[in-house]
Amino acid sequence: MAIITLTTDFGTSDGYVGAMKGVIMRLAGSHPAPAIIDLAHDIPPGDIPHAAWVVATSTTEFPHGSIHVVVVDPGVGGARREVIVRARGRWYVGPDNGVFAYLAERSGEAYAIENDRFRAEHVSRTFHGRDVFARTAAAIASGEDPAAAGPRVELAGRLPWGPRERAVGRIVHIDRFGNLITDLPEAEAGAAVTVAGLTLPIAGTYEQVEPGEVLAYIGSAGTVEIGVRDGRADRRLALPPGGEVFPAPAAPAERLGPYR
Amino acid sequence: MAIITLTTDFGTSDGYVGAMKGVIMRLAGSHPAPAIIDLAHDIPPGDIPHAAWVVATSTTEFPHGSIHVVVVDPGVGGARREVIVRARGRWYVGPDNGVFAYLAERSGEAYAIENDRFRAEHVSRTFHGRDVFARTAAAIASGEDPAAAGPRVELAGRLPWGPRERAVGRIVHIDRFGNLITDLPEAEAGAAVTVAGLTLPIAGTYEQVEPGEVLAYIGSAGTVEIGVRDGRADRRLALPPGGEVFPAPAAPAERLGPYR
Amino acid sequence: MAIITLTTDFGTSDGYVGAMKGVIMRLAGSHPAPAIIDLAHDIPPGDIPHAAWVVATSTTEFPHGSIHVVVVDPGVGGARREVIVRARGRWYVGPDNGVFAYLAERSGEAYAIENDRFRAEHVSRTFHGRDVFARTAAAIASGEDPAAAGPRVELAGRLPWGPRERAVGRIVHIDRFGNLITDLPEAEAGAAVTVAGLTLPIAGTYEQVEPGEVLAYIGSAGTVEIGVRDGRADRRLALPPGGEVFPAPAAPAERLGPYR
Repeated sequence: MAIITLTTDFGTSDGYVGAMKGVIMRLAGSHPAPAIIDLAHDIPPGDIPHAAWVVATSTTEFPHGSIHVVVVDPGVGGARREVIVRARGRWYVGPDNGVFAYLAERSGEAYAIENDRFRAEHVSRTFHGRDVFARTAAAIASGEDPAAAGPRVELAGRLPWGPRERAVGRIVHIDRFGNLITDLPEAEAGAAVTVAGLTLPIAGTYEQVEPGEVLAYIGSAGTVEIGVRDGRADRRLALPPGGEVFPAPAAPAERLGPYR
Repeated sequence: MAIITLTTDFGTSDGYVGAMKGVIMRLAGSHPAPAIIDLAHDIPPGDIPHAAWVVATSTTEFPHGSIHVVVVDPGVGGARREVIVRARGRWYVGPDNGVFAYLAERSGEAYAIENDRFRAEHVSRTFHGRDVFARTAAAIASGEDPAAAGPRVELAGRLPWGPRERAVGRIVHIDRFGNLITDLPEAEAGAAVTVAGLTLPIAGTYEQVEPGEVLAYIGSAGTVEIGVRDGRADRRLALPPGGEVFPAPAAPAERLGPYR
Repeated sequence: MAIITLTTDFGTSDGYVGAMKGVIMRLAGSHPAPAIIDLAHDIPPGDIPHAAWVVATSTTEFPHGSIHVVVVDPGVGGARREVIVRARGRWYVGPDNGVFAYLAERSGEAYAIENDRFRAEHVSRTFHGRDVFARTAAAIASGEDPAAAGPRVELAGRLPWGPRERAVGRIVHIDRFGNLITDLPEAEAGAAVTVAGLTLPIAGTYEQVEPGEVLAYIGSAGTVEIGVRDGRADRRLALPPGGEVFPAPAAPAERLGPYR
């Protein structure tokens, strides 16, 4: 059974996600029917870096051969290319606007194919999720060869910040809990990190600090995260995505007490 | 494999959607198990026209024979009838309160059956999604004959605005991105439209106007939409659902610049 | 086909739910593939009583043998135990922090097993949903014996309010529509209830009161609920979860008119 996941900024109050699912079930429903799996539909509208991080850190849990559709596409109808990406034994389908940037950065062997073939005869100007990307996923699930979709190309989509340099991390994602997630891997972090003038030792658990205190720890993506015990780091530190974090020698924590 | 989609205003923080899915899997799980597909659960509470548009524009992408349950039912327990609707080769299950109005308007051959048979022995007063509609969908997925549910009836549910007259469109949906979606079809729109005193040429892509500018274009439902490039039309124009839009001769755009 | 439902406070904008689904499809995808069913992902962050009510009132609609994963886990990485619970012929997987409290209270024969076996070799400190609970569900779906996960234990997780005493109910859940749901069963409610100094007769339908008026009625869980016709009871009465409600002799309603 083919697996198709959907990641979009379409939300859950309109019919856009439903239309994509309908296309997939109509075109691939009998091969046998794929499992359509919602990954995340409340990506903030147009937030390409947010989508890129979600895709890179969750899809690689799926089995090889799974198909991952990403539709965060503020430039729909414009010049950005449509691509199929092969990375870590899985297929990705979406616009070449940066949504695959972290995935490519974290997967040495990724390559992209321009997606010219698997589209509706009449493609609307504003909904390529339905008219191009869902159809492409259905075609791959039905046994069509993605390599036949078009020529190999270099991914052109970039994030607002470039690839990471050694010994510096960036805040790449702020999650629902207000945690600031960086791309600084555990191996480079050492015993502490510096962010926004604060030096924070890498804690083992939230319970090592008092409620309301800021802490750094290794998150579930294997990178440094900044959090607040029983609170929200995004409200305490107000650091935007792209902000930098540096490894630091272990030091007595300059603690931010609660309610400051 | 039967396909059952769910469209509700139950949100994703309570157990109501889960209870409906449980009923379907319990009653139809072995026939073989249907694919239960979430269509949209964050329909604004009680917003019947919103649900009606979502259902009409997304469910027809699904294959023939698919079953679509719609539970936006502010009058639950009151006088409105419960129906099964047949339209475009698909089955629809829900209250007769207007949620099927666009579907019937856009599908010449639609007909309705009063749904008297496929319900729990004890029906709660507030949750017919679980006790009537989910059970009806499970019954149809299990091979029961919908025609045996009750007599044929005329749909009584109406929207706040009547059926569309020729050469006038109404704003029928405001989507997550703030676009104002009308029911004026491309064929009647001509080269421009007038809305709220503005005359807007029908643009080909968002990129034909400057960021922050209002534009009209043909949306994914094949009808005129009003949007703002990199912005929200609902905040700029403040036109409620039901507001009218008229075809206009092409004219130099009376542009609304950004930040006005 | 195994059924696995997911209830979390992870929301629908991050990759956490997707990662759990990926683990389940990777580990259990070929046995044959389980049906993964979203129950609710917008449980308010860390709100254990909210999750406990959702789980208790919706999962028992599913067929026997279904597997229900609950990840509302503010103490992740700390001292709370991880458990598998057997109740009403179904399996539950999650932290022992109270999320199974209503389920156990409403199911005489529930028992718990400490979950020591079905986990990743390397378990992250902050994401046991992926590294412990999803893997446990996949193991059970693949035919592993839950009884082999560890010793039987007593559930330690408690809610802020204790078990209910006879002839008193508590507000245990506030739903998306603003209804105040209590745990006072229909059989104990009698003809009216007293809450916050108001005596409210148990109404049959919303239509028995005027728009904007407060009413009590028997909700879909078989317990008393407090609502406002065409309005929100949570905004009118401002009663927090845990607030008490008492059976009362039937009395002329002390009505709260609209707009007061």
